[in-house]
Amino acid sequence: MKALQKAKPGPGAVFGPAEDLRIKPDELLVKVHRASICGSDLPIYNWNSWAPERFKTPSTFGHEFCGTVSEIGATARDFKKGDFVSVESHIYCGLCYQCRNGQRHVCRSMKIIGVDGPGGFAEYAAVPARCAWKHKDDALRDVGSLMEPFGNAVYSVLVEDVSCRSVLVMGCGPQGLFSIAVAKASGADPIVAVETSAFRAELARKMGACAVIDPTRPHALDEALRAGKAPDGFDVVVEMSGAPAAIAMALKAVRSGGRVTAFGIPPKKIEIDWANDVIFKGVRIHGIVGRQVFETWYKTDHLLRSGAVDIRPVITHTFPMKDFEKGFSAMSAADKRCGKVVLVP
Amino acid sequence: MKALQKAKPGPGAVFGPAEDLRIKPDELLVKVHRASICGSDLPIYNWNSWAPERFKTPSTFGHEFCGTVSEIGATARDFKKGDFVSVESHIYCGLCYQCRNGQRHVCRSMKIIGVDGPGGFAEYAAVPARCAWKHKDDALRDVGSLMEPFGNAVYSVLVEDVSCRSVLVMGCGPQGLFSIAVAKASGADPIVAVETSAFRAELARKMGACAVIDPTRPHALDEALRAGKAPDGFDVVVEMSGAPAAIAMALKAVRSGGRVTAFGIPPKKIEIDWANDVIFKGVRIHGIVGRQVFETWYKTDHLLRSGAVDIRPVITHTFPMKDFEKGFSAMSAADKRCGKVVLVP
Amino acid sequence: MKALQKAKPGPGAVFGPAEDLRIKPDELLVKVHRASICGSDLPIYNWNSWAPERFKTPSTFGHEFCGTVSEIGATARDFKKGDFVSVESHIYCGLCYQCRNGQRHVCRSMKIIGVDGPGGFAEYAAVPARCAWKHKDDALRDVGSLMEPFGNAVYSVLVEDVSCRSVLVMGCGPQGLFSIAVAKASGADPIVAVETSAFRAELARKMGACAVIDPTRPHALDEALRAGKAPDGFDVVVEMSGAPAAIAMALKAVRSGGRVTAFGIPPKKIEIDWANDVIFKGVRIHGIVGRQVFETWYKTDHLLRSGAVDIRPVITHTFPMKDFEKGFSAMSAADKRCGKVVLVP
Amino acid sequence: MKALQKAKPGPGAVFGPAEDLRIKPDELLVKVHRASICGSDLPIYNWNSWAPERFKTPSTFGHEFCGTVSEIGATARDFKKGDFVSVESHIYCGLCYQCRNGQRHVCRSMKIIGVDGPGGFAEYAAVPARCAWKHKDDALRDVGSLMEPFGNAVYSVLVEDVSCRSVLVMGCGPQGLFSIAVAKASGADPIVAVETSAFRAELARKMGACAVIDPTRPHALDEALRAGKAPDGFDVVVEMSGAPAAIAMALKAVRSGGRVTAFGIPPKKIEIDWANDVIFKGVRIHGIVGRQVFETWYKTDHLLRSGAVDIRPVITHTFPMKDFEKGFSAMSAADKRCGKVVLVP
Repeated sequence: MKALQKAKPGPGAVFGPAEDLRIKPDELLVKVHRASICGSDLPIYNWNSWAPERFKTPSTFGHEFCGTVSEIGATARDFKKGDFVSVESHIYCGLCYQCRNGQRHVCRSMKIIGVDGPGGFAEYAAVPARCAWKHKDDALRDVGSLMEPFGNAVYSVLVEDVSCRSVLVMGCGPQGLFSIAVAKASGADPIVAVETSAFRAELARKMGACAVIDPTRPHALDEALRAGKAPDGFDVVVEMSGAPAAIAMALKAVRSGGRVTAFGIPPKKIEIDWANDVIFKGVRIHGIVGRQVFETWYKTDHLLRSGAVDIRPVITHTFPMKDFEKGFSAMSAADKRCGKVVLVP
Repeated sequence: MKALQKAKPGPGAVFGPAEDLRIKPDELLVKVHRASICGSDLPIYNWNSWAPERFKTPSTFGHEFCGTVSEIGATARDFKKGDFVSVESHIYCGLCYQCRNGQRHVCRSMKIIGVDGPGGFAEYAAVPARCAWKHKDDALRDVGSLMEPFGNAVYSVLVEDVSCRSVLVMGCGPQGLFSIAVAKASGADPIVAVETSAFRAELARKMGACAVIDPTRPHALDEALRAGKAPDGFDVVVEMSGAPAAIAMALKAVRSGGRVTAFGIPPKKIEIDWANDVIFKGVRIHGIVGRQVFETWYKTDHLLRSGAVDIRPVITHTFPMKDFEKGFSAMSAADKRCGKVVLVP
Repeated sequence: MKALQKAKPGPGAVFGPAEDLRIKPDELLVKVHRASICGSDLPIYNWNSWAPERFKTPSTFGHEFCGTVSEIGATARDFKKGDFVSVESHIYCGLCYQCRNGQRHVCRSMKIIGVDGPGGFAEYAAVPARCAWKHKDDALRDVGSLMEPFGNAVYSVLVEDVSCRSVLVMGCGPQGLFSIAVAKASGADPIVAVETSAFRAELARKMGACAVIDPTRPHALDEALRAGKAPDGFDVVVEMSGAPAAIAMALKAVRSGGRVTAFGIPPKKIEIDWANDVIFKGVRIHGIVGRQVFETWYKTDHLLRSGAVDIRPVITHTFPMKDFEKGFSAMSAADKRCGKVVLVP
Repeated sequence: MKALQKAKPGPGAVFGPAEDLRIKPDELLVKVHRASICGSDLPIYNWNSWAPERFKTPSTFGHEFCGTVSEIGATARDFKKGDFVSVESHIYCGLCYQCRNGQRHVCRSMKIIGVDGPGGFAEYAAVPARCAWKHKDDALRDVGSLMEPFGNAVYSVLVEDVSCRSVLVMGCGPQGLFSIAVAKASGADPIVAVETSAFRAELARKMGACAVIDPTRPHALDEALRAGKAPDGFDVVVEMSGAPAAIAMALKAVRSGGRVTAFGIPPKKIEIDWANDVIFKGVRIHGIVGRQVFETWYKTDHLLRSGAVDIRPVITHTFPMKDFEKGFSAMSAADKRCGKVVLVP
């Protein structure tokens, strides 16, 4: 089979022949139908940030993908050949305290597909059966690789009820755009977004934001509050960008007694006005990683299948996998004219 | 009447004659029975930190007190002369969004008795009727001024259920000591505390901590985790100290998927490892200010009245109000051989 | 002034001159703009069921109304003449345990306007200031009397989050119709309704039901489950009818681990399969009365003002108040071609 | 091996040689150390109620047991020979909606060990590995068979927080006694119990009830309310008896806005005052079946291991398994001088 591999430490990757996979008893072999590029694939591709320390070469990367079950391990229950599956990329153990108490997303022995082992930028991938989400039909075939990242936004937004709440979304990369759509479909109003890129601002409006504020303008916070008819702050602020300035603005923009979702990952430690922004305002902060397995997956399926959310506008580029360089290039472009990039093996 | 007043800007205070109080229609006149010194009275007394900017002289300070109703405003419902009351020091408006949605503790127009207006270090105090907690009987007379600060700990600990949870309490000043007792009475186990002062550590054990860790020792975090039988972290960490190092330790000590209470107020902005300590661990942080009015008061009353918590050991000093200097001196002493100081007018 | 009064025990009522109202210090005098007829006004009008025991004649009835503040009691805060208000009909005391713990809707000393004292079918009504919801502007003038009954549905549906949930609504009188709209606006899907009247079924579809099942047909339950794509039961069942057969069907139609809202009031005790329908299915049942004051009112305002819900189609009849007999007649008609009836004084 | 078997339809059972068990790949073979008799074993033993319809003979019954792992199926993870385990009797599938959303206790394909297949009244039992709770050490060896029934009470009581709440427990069979202990350990106060048997009332006091009311006395409800210092009703009522009169009393005894746990199973449909007891009081009813897997097990382990609850007083009889008739006889005795009966194979 062919796979997109990082053969050795250093920038770049190679799409070429790779060794055939042999699945373990609890795994499925999945013939990949679509794979999409995550922001966290960039450090691996570019070989910077955390990647050199964690990623072992040679290996295949990519962790957002879907496909068809072509082989089934001896102990894998509930699958048959030809089932169409999307993949939960976080391999939880299923046995630790967190896994057995509704918090599989923070499993104590978490491994990530495509990071801690071979991934989905390939013709085939091996996936633990417990991490495969079986589709009822083919309705979501072409967005199947996006269920994983979309699930992040579903969890981020719906960690508390948003019906009748004002919501501010910080950052309109794919995660921010997804968040806007989830909030919209769940009865939040108004939904305001913060983003510098005009291209992404346009997408944000398409997904349901009533206004998009450029944070580099003077008085951007005031503008956001006015747009949200929330002079005293938003009920909910969803921080999807990871930019330290955006995290600071998120904490200023939430109302006293409101809640903040922390999803976007800043590159290093940040300074927080703990007294004024957390304590005196009496806010709740939810750190969000991954997706609730499988609570989030059911909601994700529900939102996409019912038509409540259409995430196709977020897919701005689709390439054959061999043209992966175009994809990574689009993701990294300074103009940010990029939503999700999908690769077809 | 006599009152402890700050006559003009600058350190110190004077206990002497003060003008008689005239209550407004929605107020009660309370003959003060006991008043206690809060850590936040120190900046007023010493005239440093936030006090010079906020406190207007001349005025009486003090916001933890109880006493007997001696006069009743025309529109105050539900009181009669002789009622014994403890005082909610946060004057909420009762009309804003937060006040009408179960969050009076973060009222948009909050004023604090003894900070933004005259307080309870006096023979008499004027109190809005809606801020007076009427006692059923005299059972809590001698700890009546402590219901306000104890309520902070009740809210801090019980913001989420702690039954069957391991709890770490950072700091064993009065708020930390109260928190230990509340956790103990509510079924938390084990309860571990962190404190440098040997005197306070002793009190912490008396209130229910199974171990008290000195954070200045090497490997203090590991020691705490071992004492809590919590190799992967505590279910709940209650940060009552405000020390930046303690806040950092709190975020390291909580397990993935656990929760942190932020109550102790750091003197300035702090640096947080937002990615590793909040997001990747998937924790929830609750900023706590004041008390839930009146949810917390009912619980406070319940805990004290049933005997589930005995807070008297935390009262280490009682003085006539005229000897206030001894009280402030005990509170400020470097040896920290001090719990709560109670003043008797 | 003129008022619709029940002068003495017995069926019927008279619209004619009534004594002028004198407000108490904590009350407002409201010039009524619109009043609507509630199902619970029928026993008073027809003088049957619970009315003869509870309603004291002579008195004005009616408890769904809105209007303009024309006089303000001495102790009423936060109002000025000309303010447009809708009325919370449940006069809560504000002092009991429930009132001070977020449950004013089950106040221990509850009195109902228009039932336990004079009501709003009149040119003027006296209303405790704490029960008046002040509008920001005139946007909701013509549906202002419907905020009270619509609020019942808001509370009934949103007592738990419904985003991504399948919902079954039992009964399509005004409360059922409102419930469908609230569920729709809050991201529930699919929403199925149960109703015998073809006229109401049509309204139900307009409000957002994807299917309306006639419960008198054989296999109605199976039909409902199929329509809800919920072979094992609905996540949420909202019982708004009070019909014993509907309550029984509600408990059969909910999935194991789902939740049921009990709002519709059956005329007498009912038989329940407690073992199979409550225990073995592990369901939660929420009894709902009134509205959460003011949590529900904020949500109600939000839903109507944002345009997320348009309740005007539910108003099927509007009459001058003097033609009240037409209104009561429409409400009682066997053909059930009636949503809400609004009276204009 | 030897087992207690029901050889054919009809009353009674036989303790004698049985065929050796062959475990499936996902099962463990457990050498039984202790087994206890559940109230639901009586219909099987006496061959009445639901048993003739559901229990297939010949088979071994018994579903409360613990023991040592002696053989491990090929696909069973995380066990080694000699591990001491208690058994979750509800065999959940792990794949359905409920199983994957934190509600394994209402799995759509639930089978019960000892009811729908061979059980634990035997020297050996076969148990799905996913239903085995591995003990850290031998501390709970002698109460290990009671973790299953004790878990029912843990879930029943702690389905909502009980700290600072008044609690009424209906019925003081083992489940009621356990409930009292769980409430006590979790900070509930006061705890009142209702029971006719003087013997059980004595045990109830030992477990933490401040008063035990005989429901056959006139004004029993008033007595209970007085004992609970709850003139307007208890915050929490835990119905563990299943007696229709007790269920009725439970609904009368809860305060407006309080909550009721429905655990005890009535023998047939019951009549409920749905309007007055559920709707107008605005209560929440939680139907409870089984235990939350594994949330409840962690709490159960925590409560027993910390010493917060000592359930040994509830074990009133221990017999060698061959003397099973004495055990069933004690369980059925009219004098109700019986808590839990433990059998030793």
